[in-house]
Amino acid sequence: MSLELTILGFNSAVPTAFTHPTAQLLNIAERYFLIDCGEGTQVQLRKAKAKFNRINHIFISHLHGDHVFGLIGLISTLQLLGRDTPLYIHGPKGIEEFIMIQLKLTESKCTYDIVFNELSSKKSVLVFEDDKVEVFSIPLNHRVYTNGYLFKEKKKLRKLNMDAIQQYGEIDICDYQNLKNGKDYVMEDGTIIDNEDLTVEGPRALSYAYCSDTRYKPDIIPLIKGVDLLYHESTFLHEAKELATYTGHSTAKEAGIIAREAGVKKLVLGHFSNRYHDYSVLLNEAKLEFENTVLPRLIGTIKIKE
Amino acid sequence: MSLELTILGFNSAVPTAFTHPTAQLLNIAERYFLIDCGEGTQVQLRKAKAKFNRINHIFISHLHGDHVFGLIGLISTLQLLGRDTPLYIHGPKGIEEFIMIQLKLTESKCTYDIVFNELSSKKSVLVFEDDKVEVFSIPLNHRVYTNGYLFKEKKKLRKLNMDAIQQYGEIDICDYQNLKNGKDYVMEDGTIIDNEDLTVEGPRALSYAYCSDTRYKPDIIPLIKGVDLLYHESTFLHEAKELATYTGHSTAKEAGIIAREAGVKKLVLGHFSNRYHDYSVLLNEAKLEFENTVLPRLIGTIKIKE
Repeated sequence: MSLELTILGFNSAVPTAFTHPTAQLLNIAERYFLIDCGEGTQVQLRKAKAKFNRINHIFISHLHGDHVFGLIGLISTLQLLGRDTPLYIHGPKGIEEFIMIQLKLTESKCTYDIVFNELSSKKSVLVFEDDKVEVFSIPLNHRVYTNGYLFKEKKKLRKLNMDAIQQYGEIDICDYQNLKNGKDYVMEDGTIIDNEDLTVEGPRALSYAYCSDTRYKPDIIPLIKGVDLLYHESTFLHEAKELATYTGHSTAKEAGIIAREAGVKKLVLGHFSNRYHDYSVLLNEAKLEFENTVLPRLIGTIKIKE
Repeated sequence: MSLELTILGFNSAVPTAFTHPTAQLLNIAERYFLIDCGEGTQVQLRKAKAKFNRINHIFISHLHGDHVFGLIGLISTLQLLGRDTPLYIHGPKGIEEFIMIQLKLTESKCTYDIVFNELSSKKSVLVFEDDKVEVFSIPLNHRVYTNGYLFKEKKKLRKLNMDAIQQYGEIDICDYQNLKNGKDYVMEDGTIIDNEDLTVEGPRALSYAYCSDTRYKPDIIPLIKGVDLLYHESTFLHEAKELATYTGHSTAKEAGIIAREAGVKKLVLGHFSNRYHDYSVLLNEAKLEFENTVLPRLIGTIKIKE
């Protein structure tokens, strides 16, 4: 299994005929998570041939229109498609009122439960967890309360070394799960066989950090240390640093610095101001700080292998 | 001057990669009116190369998502574009709360005034009027409170018949406006010259009726009698009449009957269910009732000449 990030939109503020506000679809451990939902996201999901009903969790970074105005339309479409399983929406305090008042005023009948998980902590908290994945908030510094999200696969099981196991005739198939879990094997005569003699390291647990709208905030570095993929907004070039700070955004150079200092494996940029038409200037600026930086591609998927 | 209707979207319910929910841009007497505003309307406006700041009045038929979910995004974009003139929004009771709560929760600072004109009458009322145009509501019968809108140019001034005028040496340029307004001319000797001897009929006052989501409702016929252009929803073919009635919609045949009985000059269909891919079946059904029926074209403009 790999981690796959599909970019549905990567521009800031105003959608145009050719640009789309922020939304991403993440497949991690076969969970499909929608991250932010600007206007038109449901159409972008269709263009990406995403299966709507596989999306059970939506993570909203903050309540600015270019990150959330597509949510009510998607919720409404899921109703019309006859969804009957719960939809979990994680986002800042206020998001429940934001959605529920719209459903009420449009007299929408919900065919499924919407479960809101409202965040208000200024510290990183565990937002969601199941047997394969955990998601933590990444507190950011924007004009309004904003979180990024850190998506991490849990440690994966060790792989059995069958050649080694077969040397010990008495190890039964019933013992395999314990071995995968890392336990040593105790033989009938009491001899302890080290787990590492019977198994090999399992596949790598993958991780993705989504750092939405934020001023340069180096204190997130310990949180996102060594992630396989980092999305970090880079609304402006560094020559517009003052404007970036004023509007609560980062520059491409700053995104590169964060990526380098956090020792991430790959950086993808985004949330570009509409003032830029040739994004290579932003790419080149970030690359001076961190070489393995890429530009987002609309409906393009970035795959990270185990 | 002509009347121009640009279709921004004409599908019902769920937007897809190739279909767009209801929105229209009407130019009548050089006033630009936006009619309904489904998700993605602002992008459609851009594709139509519309000038956002020329739109001062928005008319919303009802609070269903496919007619209104694009409104908050457009309002937000107008802010970002630095609009400073008032925006008038006419729509059903509840629309002010619907928009204002979203602006509040997204902490949007409005750079311009939004003036809401909430409708709740079950009768046709005058919704807007200026020196050139008047707009009346058309009460419809849908699942929720819904109005269509009738846009009418006011009676236009008569044209001067200069040859006739010059025969009377004493008629001065200062008298021309009175003549255009239809007044007779009183000569110095007291003789009255009939206005019709000095002027000719002015250009025709044009009219457009927008009949959004509704069950077949023949009592609107007197209201829309003889309009130059009628948009009437036709979500289904008549073979799905039962479903149409249940969901509060009309069939193509019914749209044709309304057009014929109202003696309109041209009918444009729309709000098609996504079950139809070849819209010619809907066109053919309506044409059996009313020959001068056309299909909408995306970003296509229908021009009605004086």
